[in-house]
Amino acid sequence: MTGKQAITPAHRYRNNDKAVGVGNAFWDSCEDNGLAGIVAELDNGVLRTAEGHEFVNFTCCSYLDLDSHPQVIEGAISALRRFGVLDHCIPRSRVQIPALLELEASLGELFSADVVCAISAGVASAGLLPLIASGHLGNGTRPLMLFDKNCHVSLAGAKPACADETEIATCDHHSIDFIEDMCKRHERVCYVVDGSDSLGGYAPVLELAGLQEKYGLLVYYDDSHSLSAYGNRGVGYIRSHSPVLDERTITVATLNKAFGTSGAAIMLDGYQKATLRVIERFAGALCYSQPMNTAAVGASLASADIHRTEELTALQGKLRANIQLFDSYLKTDHAGTEYPIRVIPFSDESVIHAGRRVFEAGFYVSPVFFPIVARGTAGLRVMLRAGQTSQQIRDLCAVLAKAGACQATELAEETPS
Amino acid sequence: MTGKQAITPAHRYRNNDKAVGVGNAFWDSCEDNGLAGIVAELDNGVLRTAEGHEFVNFTCCSYLDLDSHPQVIEGAISALRRFGVLDHCIPRSRVQIPALLELEASLGELFSADVVCAISAGVASAGLLPLIASGHLGNGTRPLMLFDKNCHVSLAGAKPACADETEIATCDHHSIDFIEDMCKRHERVCYVVDGSDSLGGYAPVLELAGLQEKYGLLVYYDDSHSLSAYGNRGVGYIRSHSPVLDERTITVATLNKAFGTSGAAIMLDGYQKATLRVIERFAGALCYSQPMNTAAVGASLASADIHRTEELTALQGKLRANIQLFDSYLKTDHAGTEYPIRVIPFSDESVIHAGRRVFEAGFYVSPVFFPIVARGTAGLRVMLRAGQTSQQIRDLCAVLAKAGACQATELAEETPS
Repeated sequence: MTGKQAITPAHRYRNNDKAVGVGNAFWDSCEDNGLAGIVAELDNGVLRTAEGHEFVNFTCCSYLDLDSHPQVIEGAISALRRFGVLDHCIPRSRVQIPALLELEASLGELFSADVVCAISAGVASAGLLPLIASGHLGNGTRPLMLFDKNCHVSLAGAKPACADETEIATCDHHSIDFIEDMCKRHERVCYVVDGSDSLGGYAPVLELAGLQEKYGLLVYYDDSHSLSAYGNRGVGYIRSHSPVLDERTITVATLNKAFGTSGAAIMLDGYQKATLRVIERFAGALCYSQPMNTAAVGASLASADIHRTEELTALQGKLRANIQLFDSYLKTDHAGTEYPIRVIPFSDESVIHAGRRVFEAGFYVSPVFFPIVARGTAGLRVMLRAGQTSQQIRDLCAVLAKAGACQATELAEETPS
Repeated sequence: MTGKQAITPAHRYRNNDKAVGVGNAFWDSCEDNGLAGIVAELDNGVLRTAEGHEFVNFTCCSYLDLDSHPQVIEGAISALRRFGVLDHCIPRSRVQIPALLELEASLGELFSADVVCAISAGVASAGLLPLIASGHLGNGTRPLMLFDKNCHVSLAGAKPACADETEIATCDHHSIDFIEDMCKRHERVCYVVDGSDSLGGYAPVLELAGLQEKYGLLVYYDDSHSLSAYGNRGVGYIRSHSPVLDERTITVATLNKAFGTSGAAIMLDGYQKATLRVIERFAGALCYSQPMNTAAVGASLASADIHRTEELTALQGKLRANIQLFDSYLKTDHAGTEYPIRVIPFSDESVIHAGRRVFEAGFYVSPVFFPIVARGTAGLRVMLRAGQTSQQIRDLCAVLAKAGACQATELAEETPS
C-alpha cells in the first residue's frame, strides 16, 4: 500500500467487527427462513403478508394494545387539526408551540414527576448520559459512570461520549456488591441500568435504593418495557417501587411500547428549573429542532387520559391473566412474574427452525441471539399482550411445546394439541 | 475527600464544561430578554404569546411553508386512519407494516436514490457514522474519519463512537488541501460535512468530487437545510451538483425543515442489498423498534406528491424572490446566494439587545453565539421562507437596520422606515 497508514481500532467500548461479524450471519439465516424482513398489513390485530400468510404477532411491545385504541388515533388526528403542523421547526429552547408543554404537564401529573419529552428513549439517553457524566445533572461532581453489562444498547451506546467527559466502567448484571465497592472508592457514582429488561426481569430497585441512601448513588433507569404495563396509572416498575424519587433517580421510558404512541418521557424529581433548562439547551438532540410531532403529542395526550381511567386497570388485568395463562403451559425462567416477556431457550442450531415452525402455525415470536443476547443464550422471545385471546395463547404454547419448549410440569399431560 | 478518586476528563472530542459554561449564560441572557423560552400559538403564519404579543417567525426552517400545507396535514390523517396505529412496535428488521417501505419507495423515486428513513437526521448520523468508521459501509477498509470543524453537532457528536472504531481527525472548514493530504496518507478517508450549513453556505461539492474521483474519498453530507428548498423536485444542493452519485457519496437530510414533515431520509446509491440490510440491522437506533410514525409517513407521502408538481417550483421561486428582496435591503456575507439563511453580525454585547428590539417590532430572529458559532462571530440569524410577505420582509429589514445592521449601499437612502 505504498506507505499508507493502516488503522488499528481502539475497540474500548464497542466493536462493529464483532457485532456485525457474528450477528449478521444469524440475521441472514433468519431472513432466509422467513423470520426477518417480514412485511405485513395489520388488520384487527392480525398481520397478513402479501402472499396471504396470516399470523399473530407475539413480539410486539404494545403490551396493552393501546397503539390501535381508537381514542389514541383520534387524539393524534385532533392535535394535527388543532396545531395545523406536524412541527414548527425551531429549537424549543427558542420558540415552541404549546403542544409538547401540554403533554409534559399531563404526563407530569399522571406520573407525579417533572417530565421532559424526547423523540425516543434512545435520543433521551444519548443526550442525558453525557450531561450526567460531566456533572451538569447533579452536584457538579463528575461521577464514575457504571454501565450494567446487560443494559440496552441505547444506553451502552453512550459509553464513548461519557468516557470523554468522565471515567466509565462496566459491571456484571445487577452486581450490587461491585456497585457498592465503587461507591466507596469514588466521590460519586452513576449506575446505568434497564429498569425493565428487554429479555424479562426488573432491576433490584430496593437494594439500589439502599446504596442511594448510603452513598448518594445516582441511578439512571430505562424503564421502557414496564411503563403503562405496570403500576398504578401505568407509572412503571421503577416509580412503583423506588423509595428514592428525588434527584438521585432518573427514569426514561419510551412512549412507543405499552403507552401505545411515539416518543419518550424522561421522569425527573427535585431538579431546579435551571437544570431543566440545561437539559433543554445541551442534552444532545433534545436541543435540536425536531421534537415529538403533534400527532405523537395528541395520541399521547389521549393515551394519558386512558391511563387515568379504570380502562387501564382492566387492560393491565387482562395482560396479567394472559401472562399467567402462558406460564400455566410453558416453563421459563420468568414464569410466575408479572413481566410480559418470556424467553424460551433453544440452541443456536435449533432456534431458527423452531421459530419457523411457530411462524408457519400462525404466530411470530422473535429469535434472539448474539449480539442481542450473550453467546450461548439464544431463544425465542415471546411478548404477551392484553389483547391476545386465550385460544391464541393456548395454540402458541402447543406449537412451542412441539418445537421443543419445556412444558410446565403439572400440565404436561393435558397440553392442547 | 478521604482517599476517594478524583476524575480528570479526557475531553478529546467534547467538553460539556466549555459548552455549558459559556453557552448557558448566553441562553439565560436570551431568556431574560424574552428571546428564548418563548411559547406561542401558531395561527395563519403568525405566532401569538399568551400575553398577546404577535410576531412573525424569521427563524423557522420550514422554508417552503409545507409544514402547514393542508395536503400534508390530510396526508398524516389519512395514514393514521389507514394503518390504525402510530407504530406497530417491533424492529423493522423483523416485522414491519408497509408504511415506511412505501415512503422509501416514493422518496427513492423522487430523489433518484436508495432511501432509508430515520426518525431524525441526528439519529441517522449517529447510526451510520460508526458503521462507516468500521468499514462496514464501504469496501471493508476502515477510513480515517475526517470531521469538518464547523459540521453540525449531530455529526460531531459521533466523534467518540467513531474514534473507537477507527482513527478520527478534525479539519478546518472546507480545507480541500488538508483533505487531499489525508487522502494521500491514508488508504481510505471519509470526510463528514454539512452539505448546507445552518449558518448559510454550501459545501465545495465539485472540488470534493475531484478528490472522490482521484482517491476514492467517501463524503458524508448532511444536506438538511437545502432539501426541498433547492434543486429540481427539491433534491437539495448536494444531489443537484455532485457528479459522484455512487457509493462514495452519502447524503442525509431531515424531513423536518423545508420538506415540512417529520423524520429524515438517508440517500444512497450503488450499495448492495446486503449493505442496506446491515444498515437496518446495525446502524444504531435505525435498528430499534421506533421508526418514523405513520402520521409522519403519511405527511411525507403527501409532501413528496407536492414535490412532483409545479407547486414546488412556484414555492421555490417565491423563496428565491424573498431572499433577493432581503438582500436588496441588507448587506450580509451570503447576499446574492440562493441560500435561505442570513446572519447579521453583532457583537456579543449588542446581539441580544438588537434581537429584543426586533422581537418587540413583531419579528423573531434568533441570536446565535458560542458554542453554536465560533467565538466572536455572534449575530442574528434570519431564515427566509416562501410564505413571508414582501411587507414583512421590508419591515424586518427596517428594524434590523435601525438596530445596527449594515444596509445594502445602493438602497441606503430609500430604506423604508
